[in-house]
Amino acid sequence: MSELAHIYPNDRITLREVGLRDGLQLVKTWPDTDAKRDWLRCEHAAGVRHFEIGSFLPSRHFPQFGDVHEIIAAGAALNGAHSAALALNERGLDDAIHTAVGEIVCVISATEEHSQANMRRSRDEAIGLVRKAVALRDTEAPGKIINAGIAMAFGCSISGHVDQREVIRLSEACLAAGADIVGLADTVGYAGPRQVGALSKTMERLCGERPFAIHLHDTRGMGIANAAAAIDNGARVLDASLGGLGGCPFAPGATGNVVFEDLVFLCETMGFATGIDISALKKARAVAEHSMPGEPFYGALAKAGPPANLKWSA
Amino acid sequence: MSELAHIYPNDRITLREVGLRDGLQLVKTWPDTDAKRDWLRCEHAAGVRHFEIGSFLPSRHFPQFGDVHEIIAAGAALNGAHSAALALNERGLDDAIHTAVGEIVCVISATEEHSQANMRRSRDEAIGLVRKAVALRDTEAPGKIINAGIAMAFGCSISGHVDQREVIRLSEACLAAGADIVGLADTVGYAGPRQVGALSKTMERLCGERPFAIHLHDTRGMGIANAAAAIDNGARVLDASLGGLGGCPFAPGATGNVVFEDLVFLCETMGFATGIDISALKKARAVAEHSMPGEPFYGALAKAGPPANLKWSA
Repeated sequence: MSELAHIYPNDRITLREVGLRDGLQLVKTWPDTDAKRDWLRCEHAAGVRHFEIGSFLPSRHFPQFGDVHEIIAAGAALNGAHSAALALNERGLDDAIHTAVGEIVCVISATEEHSQANMRRSRDEAIGLVRKAVALRDTEAPGKIINAGIAMAFGCSISGHVDQREVIRLSEACLAAGADIVGLADTVGYAGPRQVGALSKTMERLCGERPFAIHLHDTRGMGIANAAAAIDNGARVLDASLGGLGGCPFAPGATGNVVFEDLVFLCETMGFATGIDISALKKARAVAEHSMPGEPFYGALAKAGPPANLKWSA
Repeated sequence: MSELAHIYPNDRITLREVGLRDGLQLVKTWPDTDAKRDWLRCEHAAGVRHFEIGSFLPSRHFPQFGDVHEIIAAGAALNGAHSAALALNERGLDDAIHTAVGEIVCVISATEEHSQANMRRSRDEAIGLVRKAVALRDTEAPGKIINAGIAMAFGCSISGHVDQREVIRLSEACLAAGADIVGLADTVGYAGPRQVGALSKTMERLCGERPFAIHLHDTRGMGIANAAAAIDNGARVLDASLGGLGGCPFAPGATGNVVFEDLVFLCETMGFATGIDISALKKARAVAEHSMPGEPFYGALAKAGPPANLKWSA
């Protein structure tokens, strides 16, 4: 089995917990390095194996990711854990490639307007970075996975409607650039389940043996419905954050990523065993909540618990 | 077109706002009669036409429904509005039949254990009440719709797992008793989308020209995903409550009914025009919140608003 098929087997669902990356993107307080290690350890004990743990960004602008090297080391010490980190430019890529991180995520905007406004570069330049990441990986760190994440894939805070044919074209370009996995992100929570289902079906055809990931935000309450539609249409890798951490810069007070605990429950009701113990996630949640007082944590399972008197797991 | 097809046309989705009934089932404070009238008026102005507005129950035990006659009159005064109320025994039925209410809802438990524990009667006796309601309607109030709602249809707080064949058998019995519409309720929020989709598909076949309703609680965050699955499998009548009012007696602090505003958004993203203006619902929400201080109101649309820069409506 190839390394990719080992990390992202296509016969089951893989849930990536992105709380330590996307969940910390906008927060005012964040866990210190010890709390982040605890967070990882507790989740690992609950059965989580896939983590997005930080970004390679200048720490004067993003101090919450200043300990990315330590957190990569903490992840690497956990048996069977796979960690990913973002690299948004060549400098970040050079930093990331020589760490123990298992996966490097590059980001492409679905619209030219958002690409220029957010990253001050064209989408073609962003795909160029994926190409460089693949080349660098091939020579320097053959085991690493290169992930190309397409932000605003279902709707854009600047352009509004996003032409889904453009997302398909960009996905093809990422695959042609050598990306091992392409992710589609509903960054600002514009999508509904039919849209997510349709694009997932196309991605399944497009990616062939390679996996694709679906990254959903719950800004408008559609997160779990969109996840169900993605799964129904072939998605086998989904992102979520513990307690739904991670807001939306364009909707102050809005909810963030789809809630990890609730997504685990969804998968189990759909007959996909995740290997994750929802009740055991409470400990990780307590660590995260304690380390970020004042940040809202969401999720229905955390309040209600799994159904009583029922073997609900598949 | 028959009265039934006029109230519940099968070529579009009908959303029933059940906040004034199910939303008030468990609360400690509730709106006074004037606030309830305002609530109805504001929702009607936003385009809502279907309301479940109370229960015929002894007002010494359920004072929140003590003004059911006044609220029925308020609903009847709104142009094109259709109101429903619960009648849980013969006394309630006799009271309801001579009011202007357009629909009388009888309730059957999906499990014998819950039926005995909750209503102190068998499921057969509950179906007997449906038969009586139909007979009484035929002689006394030919225009009214008789709705048979099956509680705990997807999981039971007492029995846990609910045999879906039993739910089908009970639905057939309700149709044979003459019910115009059968509703399936995930009363305690145990269901996942595949279960709701499968049972909806069966109901579509079973009910033929008659509509069936899906009543979902968001106790475990699956409400919108379950609604999407129901719609994908033929459901055209769905219940929800403004702000997700209505908790769960078995999970203190848990969320209640699926959130009306978010369900409207879901339907629109799925290409079903609801005729409801989400932004205009804010006024109704403000009335409800003001009248019930201390009660939690939920919903993502209420926080984030509809997507910016996007004509999201179908």
